[in-house]
Order: sequence, then structure tokens, then C-alpha cells
Amino acid sequence: MSDRIEQQLAFLREAEMLKSVTRATPIHDASRPENSAEHSWSLALYALTLADQAEPGVDITRVIKMLLLHDLVEIDVGDVPIHSQEGSAHGSAEIAAQEAAAAERIFGLLPEDQRAEFHALWAEFEAAETPSARFAKSLDRAQPVLLNHQSGGGSWIDYDVHWDQLQSRVGDKIALGAPGLWPVIRARISAWFEARGLI
Amino acid sequence: MSDRIEQQLAFLREAEMLKSVTRATPIHDASRPENSAEHSWSLALYALTLADQAEPGVDITRVIKMLLLHDLVEIDVGDVPIHSQEGSAHGSAEIAAQEAAAAERIFGLLPEDQRAEFHALWAEFEAAETPSARFAKSLDRAQPVLLNHQSGGGSWIDYDVHWDQLQSRVGDKIALGAPGLWPVIRARISAWFEARGLI
Repeated sequence: MSDRIEQQLAFLREAEMLKSVTRATPIHDASRPENSAEHSWSLALYALTLADQAEPGVDITRVIKMLLLHDLVEIDVGDVPIHSQEGSAHGSAEIAAQEAAAAERIFGLLPEDQRAEFHALWAEFEAAETPSARFAKSLDRAQPVLLNHQSGGGSWIDYDVHWDQLQSRVGDKIALGAPGLWPVIRARISAWFEARGLI
Repeated sequence: MSDRIEQQLAFLREAEMLKSVTRATPIHDASRPENSAEHSWSLALYALTLADQAEPGVDITRVIKMLLLHDLVEIDVGDVPIHSQEGSAHGSAEIAAQEAAAAERIFGLLPEDQRAEFHALWAEFEAAETPSARFAKSLDRAQPVLLNHQSGGGSWIDYDVHWDQLQSRVGDKIALGAPGLWPVIRARISAWFEARGLI
């Protein structure tokens, strides 16, 4: 038991590093970039709050676990902004390979049973094939949209994002796992793009 | 449904403010204070990882929900450091009344059923009477201790904390809900206090 708890605490100590990984989205008042640890908290709270937006077959507890763990690989790889390099960097084979190695290292700090469990949750999220993973992915796309809007534009300005890019890179993916959520978000944010001639 | 999701999104928009509430504990590299949003993420990850430290009767999913919600009242009240005012400010009747009003306001943004559910989870955490709440409270005490240690001393230095104060304000409370965890933490951190003549 002693070794077990030492391994668990080593993992939790390593996880603290996620607070230094910054994202393209600013926080609510645009005073600084959001970091991936607080982003993960937001997503878990989204899952808890928007549970009734989930499709049949979604296990909300599993979604929350995935969202708590999903960005830990960024401790090694950093966050890859969805709108960077014209939307091509996110999900590239090179980044995916780096993230897979990071998952091996970071979840490898845990006792064997938890290593397997946490790694499987992360892999399920990445594959986005189960209803729970698709819902989790949709929330991971939705929160930055609403936070960009709340903060005055955020990474949409930095990356010169037009409406059709937002629709294809983000909207279509939110709609995959949370079909009722995207129309509500779209109604909130479209005026921002219209006012700037980006629709 | 339209009103319902609008209320849910209003709550999530308000929750973003927690990222601006700073705590007495610095992050891992002491580069800046931790904020209450990323602290809440750490605690949920602690619950997931240290679930086997919980006493019988603890519902880990419920613990995670409590920990995701427990600090939202700080949006109105701010964080009250456990070692401030010689340990007397934390848990005072005045602070408790302010936090109760904050809970009414913030959870009041939600649809009625979720307002009741989230408020009950927060109240259960605050009361610290159920096994799940006691475990959640223990983790809320444990993570700052380990993070202070990781960052080189943190709020122990700022508030001139001696070993007997740490034991009574923190150690005894960790032991209440996670009796196996405190001896392991104590063994890790006691050298820091010994080296400074604080034991």
C-alpha cells in the first residue's frame, strides 16, 4: 500500500504542471490566457451542468473522468490551438504520436490498475467513438467558443477566424455529440461575426 | 428546454469568474498564486486517483461533484486562507454567512432542479458530516499541503506556520476523512519544518 500511494502522489505531483500549459483562449475578462488545468475544470462543470444535453448511452461520470484527464498529455506536448496553421495542426499524426508517448509517461507514474484505467479513459476520449467520448469532445469544443465570446473575441481575432471556419472546425463537431447545444451557441455568437463582416 | 439551457449557460458563464480568484498557495514552480478553478480541478483529480484512501460509505462520484462545485462561492467572497489571522478567519460565522448568500445567488442561476441539487452538494460539503463530504474536505486540506511543499514552502512562509499549527489546522482534518493519507504526507513534509526549526 505504501508503494501504491507513493505512485499516486507522484502522478498528482506531475499533474500540477498542467497549470503552466497555456491555451489560445483568454479567460473571461481577457486579462490572461486560460490554462489547461482550469479549462479541464470548466469542462467537468459543463458535463455536470449540461448532462441533459447528452445523447442516450452517455455515462456522465465517465465523461467527467475523461475531461479531468484529457489534457494531461499537454504537460509534454503543449496545447495545439484548434485555429492554428489554418486548422491543420490540431489532430495531425505528428502531434498524435507525441501525445501517445506523453500518455505512456504520465499515466505510467500510476499503479498498474490505475495506469490501465486512466490510459483507457484518455484513449476513449481521443478516439471519440463511444457516446460518452463524443459528448466529452463536444463540450471540449463548446467551452472555448463561449469563453472566446465572453472575453470579446479571443483566439478568433488572433487567428482571423471566419464563420465558415468556425462552423467546420468547431460547430460541426459540437453538433456530433451535443446536437441540441450547437444551435443555442450559434444563436449567441453569430452577431459577433456578422458585426465584423466575417459571415 | 430553451429557457433551461439558457439558465445552464448563464451559470457556466458566471462560473468562469472563479479563474480570477487567487489562493494563498502558489503553483508548483512558485511563479504565481494558484487560482480556485485550477485548484478545484486538482481536487477532482485527487478524488479520482486516491479513491482507495476513502473510508467505507464514500461515493467517489459524489465527492468529485462536490469538489467541482465547492469553491464557486468564492466568486463573491474570495478565498479565505486557512493560515490567515492565526487560523481564525477560515470558517468564521461572518464568512459562512457571506458564502451562504453567494451560494443562493450563484446556484440560483440554474434551473430549479439543478439549483436544488448543486446547492445540496455544496451544503453537504460545508457540513462535512457524511463520509463523502469528510473525504472531500480531507482532499481540500491535503492538496495545498503537497503543493506548498512542491513549490518550496508557499503560504507556510507567508504566514509563518509552525508544525503544531499545521497539525491542528490541517493534519487533524486530513486524518478525519482520509486517515491513511496524513501519515504519508507528514512523512514527506516534516523535514521541511525540521530544517527551519519549526518543529
